[in-house]
Amino acid sequence: MKKIEKIRWIPLGGLNEIGKNMNIFECGNDAIILDCGMAFPDDDMPGIDCVIPDITYLHKIRSKIRGIVLTHGHEDHIGALPYVLKEINVPVYGTRLTLGILRNKLKEHGILSSSKLNNVEAGESVRLGCFNAEFIHTNHSIADAVAIALHTPAGIILHTGDFKIDPTPIEGEMIDLARIGELGKEGILALMSDSTNADRPGFTMSEKSIGSTFENLFDKATDKRIIVATFASNVHRVQQIVNAAYQHGRKVAVSGRSMVNVLNAAIELGYMNIPKNTLIDLDEIDRYPKEKLVIITTGSQGESMSALTRMAFSIHKKINIEPTDMVIISASPIPGNEKTVSNVVNELLKHGAEVVHERQDNVHVSGHACQQEQRMIIALAKPKYFIPVHGEYRHLCRHKDLALQTGMNPKNIFISDIGKIIELSEKSAKFVGSVPSGKVLVDGLGVGDVGNIVLRDRKHLAEDGIIIAVISIDKLTGECVSGPDIISRGFVYVRESEDLMESIRTLTADIVDQCTTGSNLNWTTLKTRIKNDVGSYLYSKTKRRPMLLPIIMEV
Amino acid sequence: MKKIEKIRWIPLGGLNEIGKNMNIFECGNDAIILDCGMAFPDDDMPGIDCVIPDITYLHKIRSKIRGIVLTHGHEDHIGALPYVLKEINVPVYGTRLTLGILRNKLKEHGILSSSKLNNVEAGESVRLGCFNAEFIHTNHSIADAVAIALHTPAGIILHTGDFKIDPTPIEGEMIDLARIGELGKEGILALMSDSTNADRPGFTMSEKSIGSTFENLFDKATDKRIIVATFASNVHRVQQIVNAAYQHGRKVAVSGRSMVNVLNAAIELGYMNIPKNTLIDLDEIDRYPKEKLVIITTGSQGESMSALTRMAFSIHKKINIEPTDMVIISASPIPGNEKTVSNVVNELLKHGAEVVHERQDNVHVSGHACQQEQRMIIALAKPKYFIPVHGEYRHLCRHKDLALQTGMNPKNIFISDIGKIIELSEKSAKFVGSVPSGKVLVDGLGVGDVGNIVLRDRKHLAEDGIIIAVISIDKLTGECVSGPDIISRGFVYVRESEDLMESIRTLTADIVDQCTTGSNLNWTTLKTRIKNDVGSYLYSKTKRRPMLLPIIMEV
Repeated sequence: MKKIEKIRWIPLGGLNEIGKNMNIFECGNDAIILDCGMAFPDDDMPGIDCVIPDITYLHKIRSKIRGIVLTHGHEDHIGALPYVLKEINVPVYGTRLTLGILRNKLKEHGILSSSKLNNVEAGESVRLGCFNAEFIHTNHSIADAVAIALHTPAGIILHTGDFKIDPTPIEGEMIDLARIGELGKEGILALMSDSTNADRPGFTMSEKSIGSTFENLFDKATDKRIIVATFASNVHRVQQIVNAAYQHGRKVAVSGRSMVNVLNAAIELGYMNIPKNTLIDLDEIDRYPKEKLVIITTGSQGESMSALTRMAFSIHKKINIEPTDMVIISASPIPGNEKTVSNVVNELLKHGAEVVHERQDNVHVSGHACQQEQRMIIALAKPKYFIPVHGEYRHLCRHKDLALQTGMNPKNIFISDIGKIIELSEKSAKFVGSVPSGKVLVDGLGVGDVGNIVLRDRKHLAEDGIIIAVISIDKLTGECVSGPDIISRGFVYVRESEDLMESIRTLTADIVDQCTTGSNLNWTTLKTRIKNDVGSYLYSKTKRRPMLLPIIMEV
Repeated sequence: MKKIEKIRWIPLGGLNEIGKNMNIFECGNDAIILDCGMAFPDDDMPGIDCVIPDITYLHKIRSKIRGIVLTHGHEDHIGALPYVLKEINVPVYGTRLTLGILRNKLKEHGILSSSKLNNVEAGESVRLGCFNAEFIHTNHSIADAVAIALHTPAGIILHTGDFKIDPTPIEGEMIDLARIGELGKEGILALMSDSTNADRPGFTMSEKSIGSTFENLFDKATDKRIIVATFASNVHRVQQIVNAAYQHGRKVAVSGRSMVNVLNAAIELGYMNIPKNTLIDLDEIDRYPKEKLVIITTGSQGESMSALTRMAFSIHKKINIEPTDMVIISASPIPGNEKTVSNVVNELLKHGAEVVHERQDNVHVSGHACQQEQRMIIALAKPKYFIPVHGEYRHLCRHKDLALQTGMNPKNIFISDIGKIIELSEKSAKFVGSVPSGKVLVDGLGVGDVGNIVLRDRKHLAEDGIIIAVISIDKLTGECVSGPDIISRGFVYVRESEDLMESIRTLTADIVDQCTTGSNLNWTTLKTRIKNDVGSYLYSKTKRRPMLLPIIMEV
């Protein structure tokens, strides 16, 4: 009798959250990882630089891991790699541009030379233990994106990565629907598909539609300098800006570190086609009349230290915004960034610049498939099992609805969560337990040393500040020999609250007196009483609850 | 020769910002205030409860102030009144519902009995010194909203308040366009008009359009409990929910303090029409089958402790969300709240509830005029001078564009800012200086005691936490007799960073040794060196910059 082969799929990120996409596929003695991304910190994680997946489970199966396969070069798919490779240095497989961008990151982390990067092109496959990973060309807001068809002993599993269907891409071809259709006919066991835009009806516009928007705007801005902000990694968007500039006889300068980095990588690897004498150095812009210039810049999300934000707030060293500027923000605000983008727009307008940025102005299209495209992929792949991925719970639910509309059996659709194990075989699919999963916070050089207690303290400190009461006590006599001194930070403006500060001091002194006279001096009691009594007093006076920190020095 | 009368208009809030709307009109020895609102704190104001206008200038002219005129009962128009009336107790004039809502607020602040509230209905006028304030009926997302036509010695000034043009309102009539037209024919010196939706083309939908959405949803949800979240103050929205419930034979229960408060005020004042035996107590809901219930609740913005959020996160005492619930969020997220609303939706879906919330579902309409309505008001009022108000800079600019489209002279359109004085006369309008203006932060009972220094400290503490180094020094010998003790909060998880903490202690001890041996003990030097040396050491080890607080006790 034939053995029934089983695959275990475990997402460590990207489900029920935006970002840190990461998947484990296990089969017998082999395992591979698909993508390894980071997420941006939430509002309730002050001081945190980025969030990466909890990889406790990877350590447990480290001897089985045959490699890491990457779908494309966005931060939410490759951003955690430097941290993971430092712990588990396995071979990495990706397309040329993906690896080009990754190389920059690994260099910054000082681990480029020790990393094992392997180039695989769309259409090619790579064998990793019992898995055969086939790279399939897709369209997305970054070049060289792929879906991965995993040929496994249990059947074919297709993971779309991030995708849209663009019949008129800027470079290369439409997503390889033919290959997906072929695999569908052959029989796909499970489809994991990008849910980002599951609540948007219809089709995502072609990247090319932006080209004519640029044409029109460039036609209109005859006597103006043009500044375009967009995502650095959107090589095709940048190409279209360069094309429009060239056709209008304008020179192009670039501002913003990540824009310069990605552009250099893209040019070097042949992903961009820059006409001769078009690119100039940012230092040279004063040599050209305004109407002969285009500046491509970062900062489309209003990020605090980005080039566009510095221009808007007049702290950019080389560019001053003037009424003769047209600023095009060729991006949509990522949820959570609406306010910062709005602030940047207001400041640009105050300088008298013309600002083009709204969705109705057609200056941006999404990189993700909308509902009609999502239905098409499901109908083409005809999977036995469908698992929506890459989205919050509401997106996954909507995507499930779309799969139902294509006629799928609801029993064969799985909404999962990070850490959950789904076991897939040609006969069945089911949840079979879970592994540790979650968020690991990166703060400066520290990875994982900021946890719930530290975050809770930071939030407490941010809300109402801290009050420190210091007392020196003679360890022989038990008498208070100095203090209490009261120091506060982030609580009130002390110079205008001297009475309040003095009354805290007096109250603390009284408590110290009460606790240090008599026979049994108990420091825990003393500290608790200072916390409770001073805390209640302050709350009654101010309705605030600063952190209270009694410090007793024994001399 | 006739004396040319002059009016000075000074906004203290509401321009180049969202919220805290407040205007001063001065003429000779008289001044009046129009609206007195609060704003929500920005992300960079941790711990702050609300923001009110800086009223330094009001103190300067307090003997001239004849009264405060209110356009409607929203927080951003009345929320600062309790604070202002505590300092300057002048008569307040508003419509019935506006004063009804205000009374609740003044009661909470304990100043209701000392306040002088005067009821003025739309169509009536009130004389305040040389001003005659005429109340003109408008449509908005709260009942009893008015525009104010100020009849002044220099001419008529029309301030729209917040408005839309709703030809089919739920209660009462369309905005009194006839009266605005009459005044326009008579001659309006200046128009100040609501810019909120200046970037939205077309017309805002009628509030009534929501009614048929509710009808359809109620028809569909035959076997479900219905929970509707909306703004408490939107009395007409609540009325439509009650109507739909009644027509479908459902009982209505209410959850959320502000919803209960406003509903009671509205019923008492006759602004709502609740059919007999329709309203039930929240404690009674278990007595009815699910499909016979509608619960109206707060929390449409995903506010952290609101009723809907508590339901979503399973901490509501009386309501558990189940798959037999349909939750309708009848509101749009206010910019900045997108993420919190999204989180609530995800949690509701995880309980299996059906959630209706998107713009395309027609469950919400704006309370503000869109471009076509804004053009109409300008064309009807035919003002000599036009001043867009109530919006960020980008909204004011767009609104200016609309005024230009109606044929206005660009020289007669003024984009102003808080604190700026515009002097208006029948001959001219010009900027003539400024008065103090800005944000006063309210934190608990403190009004204005949290300023830039405290906020900067809070943000610093939130980013990287605090490290305290305490040392006791013998004041006679200058020797260190205890410590250094190192205490940290919000920096690292101390139990897993013992080596780091110990190295800070050692480094501090070395600095203390160096500074306390030799002849000149200088505490400032000692403190500075601890800050600098420990700071640099920590940055090199962690790339973090916690607040460093050396405390020296003299014993």
